Amino acid sequence: MTVRRTSVQTLLGSQELEREVVVNGWVRTRRGNKYVQFIAVNDGSSIHNIQVVADAEKFPEESLKDVTTGSCVAVRGQLVASQGKGQAVEIQAADITVLGKADAETYPLQKKGHTLEFLREIAHLRPRTNTFGAVLRVRHALAFAVHQYFNDHGFYYIHTPIITGSDAEGAGQMFRVTTLPDQNPPLTEDKTGVDYKQDFFGKQTNLTVSGQLEGEVAAMALGKVYTFGPTFRAENSNTARHLAEFWMIEPEMAFYDLQDNMELAEDFLKYLVRYALEKCSDDLQFLNDQYDKELLERLRFVVDNDFQRLTYTEAVEILKSAKKKFEFPVDWGTDLQSEHERYLVEKHFKKPVILTDYPKDIKAFYMKLNDDDKTVRAMDVLFPGIGEIIGGSQREEDLEKLRARMAAMHVPEDELWWYLELRKFGTAPHAGFGLGFERLILFVTGMANIRDVIPFPRFPKNAEF
Amino acid sequence: MTVRRTSVQTLLGSQELEREVVVNGWVRTRRGNKYVQFIAVNDGSSIHNIQVVADAEKFPEESLKDVTTGSCVAVRGQLVASQGKGQAVEIQAADITVLGKADAETYPLQKKGHTLEFLREIAHLRPRTNTFGAVLRVRHALAFAVHQYFNDHGFYYIHTPIITGSDAEGAGQMFRVTTLPDQNPPLTEDKTGVDYKQDFFGKQTNLTVSGQLEGEVAAMALGKVYTFGPTFRAENSNTARHLAEFWMIEPEMAFYDLQDNMELAEDFLKYLVRYALEKCSDDLQFLNDQYDKELLERLRFVVDNDFQRLTYTEAVEILKSAKKKFEFPVDWGTDLQSEHERYLVEKHFKKPVILTDYPKDIKAFYMKLNDDDKTVRAMDVLFPGIGEIIGGSQREEDLEKLRARMAAMHVPEDELWWYLELRKFGTAPHAGFGLGFERLILFVTGMANIRDVIPFPRFPKNAEF
Repeated sequence: MTVRRTSVQTLLGSQELEREVVVNGWVRTRRGNKYVQFIAVNDGSSIHNIQVVADAEKFPEESLKDVTTGSCVAVRGQLVASQGKGQAVEIQAADITVLGKADAETYPLQKKGHTLEFLREIAHLRPRTNTFGAVLRVRHALAFAVHQYFNDHGFYYIHTPIITGSDAEGAGQMFRVTTLPDQNPPLTEDKTGVDYKQDFFGKQTNLTVSGQLEGEVAAMALGKVYTFGPTFRAENSNTARHLAEFWMIEPEMAFYDLQDNMELAEDFLKYLVRYALEKCSDDLQFLNDQYDKELLERLRFVVDNDFQRLTYTEAVEILKSAKKKFEFPVDWGTDLQSEHERYLVEKHFKKPVILTDYPKDIKAFYMKLNDDDKTVRAMDVLFPGIGEIIGGSQREEDLEKLRARMAAMHVPEDELWWYLELRKFGTAPHAGFGLGFERLILFVTGMANIRDVIPFPRFPKNAEF
Repeated sequence: MTVRRTSVQTLLGSQELEREVVVNGWVRTRRGNKYVQFIAVNDGSSIHNIQVVADAEKFPEESLKDVTTGSCVAVRGQLVASQGKGQAVEIQAADITVLGKADAETYPLQKKGHTLEFLREIAHLRPRTNTFGAVLRVRHALAFAVHQYFNDHGFYYIHTPIITGSDAEGAGQMFRVTTLPDQNPPLTEDKTGVDYKQDFFGKQTNLTVSGQLEGEVAAMALGKVYTFGPTFRAENSNTARHLAEFWMIEPEMAFYDLQDNMELAEDFLKYLVRYALEKCSDDLQFLNDQYDKELLERLRFVVDNDFQRLTYTEAVEILKSAKKKFEFPVDWGTDLQSEHERYLVEKHFKKPVILTDYPKDIKAFYMKLNDDDKTVRAMDVLFPGIGEIIGGSQREEDLEKLRARMAAMHVPEDELWWYLELRKFGTAPHAGFGLGFERLILFVTGMANIRDVIPFPRFPKNAEF
């Protein structure tokens, strides 16, 4: 009978010893002496390797010459209790086959301790490192947790369009999508511009900056929905916090007011962090030890504390009377800077914070106006170390108030006729928010640069792989 | 105490009667006489409505004038056993508030029986119809089932890039992504072309046609991975089977051969169809009754039958000796047409079919060459009514054989240096496949046009909403 392959993770947790097993994976290290060689094999299922023990009697030096760091091997042997420290079980090898060599002179991950900057240049190999293995497993776990949470709570997943004919939301610079020739495109009859009627979609199109407006369409029919898809910003920001292509999660709920929206955001974030703590404990422990000794503490801090809720106006008062000297002055009506947000979370309240009711002039046109005619029912969730992690609002459901806001903010009505019709036909109070998925991964993994939490980052002058 | 809102789905399944409930939703119909009015309310949680009974004594005609089809209402009342046919429970209304009117003269969904073509033009309102509510709920359920299946089986979800600097896969026409000015873009020094070094990413970029190659990167480190994201084709196909933007699921597994790949594909598809049959029985029953009387039967056919496996060469023999006259002739070396695929599935084997080992010249460069040097380890899964639903292969893991195939098929090596390095460093046998998500939804819902199974379809001359 052929023994079927088992994952490293399964073997490491196995109580059933003294049996033949088969494992395939990549060699992380090989060390030993003239009597025995120890080969650490990893197959991506765990941050931990399984130790393969090869006795020199059975495996003379020459037979192991291709078993080098980075090579791919298939190992058959006995699963036994380990005599050494650091692992409960190991494999006493009976047979080792090299499936793929990795030349020791040229394999880029030969040595340990490469910089994250260097690893970004070999994004096709970096998932084989401990760090990126851990980050990608956490990323998977959190993506699944997002779907699990919403499915369990009666939300429907909606795929909103990536290519959009509208640039109405004004959330940022957009990428143009076209099939017109890149030189001498057809012009309109009066020669004043490109004739987009001849482009693929018969109009100018861009990559979406948010699925929210289309999410509202779905919420006004299905009740509770969410999007989870890629969004884009063509901003020339070369920072550790910005990507040109990133994934966003945007729930949108009919019949929710700002209060309901806050309850959901807090419950959702706690669920996600708790999920990671439970399902990714090995990976998070590694990241905690390797990069950020306060990581686990910070994650528990979010799970264990009620989020402090206050208005923007109250926050401005607190910041004004703070002893701390800020780089940017605080004044009612201006947007808060990261230093202000972090002061509130880390110094003043010492817990996550939800700020509400921002001045209307610094928020988007679709947010519901308060009776004071000065503020809108916006909410930002602020986290330690990271500042804003969620932005949301109750939406303006009144047709005339929405039109007035659009006029005031120069949002053209003709592109959003369908969005206005949601208010014309069976309108309802509703609310929603957006969570940048990579921001969440940054927070949960403790990584410092957003380019290190997505497999293939896209940023100015970089679309490699 | 304020009674909290309950979903229609929960109320319809409730055994706990004679209690006060609150429901919010959209009015589907209102009918009745001078003594009593019956209002059917739907909140998107179910294909079924809850019946609200409003006695004329409490609700004079005038008080219900805005309770029209499409209006949004909040209802408070007693949940009671229904006296009428067609529903087990109903709400005896104590209070009805109109949250949003829907003018009977202008509301587009006033009457029943709109064509699907007309509904496509009001994609912002069509989720409020029974048909699109059902389709979108099934779509959600299947998307969740995809994640559930892979998570349960130890796969990691990988977000492969949407914007890509490579057009090497050659799967079809691509959309260009740019921030250069649309007229008079900067030219290279020799004026022969646009200077893409000055574009956002420093090179020409396109929208992805597949995440497979990047998926292989992840599989060669994490073992078993999958993608689930949008993909794009800039093909001018105005058919019921093509979209310019659609979602693809692409699992990729280290150490899998073609046999393992087939096992996975069959198990996965059966799981998805079984999941829909279990979780969406009401919606599927509706679609069965309304659009396709053989839908449920066809779904059970897939779940209950082992898929028939045979080689392309064997299939050609069968087709050549078939009594049926085909429009397109069958000859070894040419691609099979939909009529051939459907003949094999629906007439000859009467079960789903997996064809393997296609001629190398009609398949992609990355498929593993067989020892006969004529065929590759490809597989297509063929379904009744729909033809090919999955295409996949074992990948060529041998560096030199891959380079030879690339040279023969004019795939430039310099763009895929990183893909080649996967074979250079620790290569391993691996395999994977692609499932077009909208093709799956077409099959499971029985809808005829792919534009009706995605919320906001993108096709030539259409990027509305």
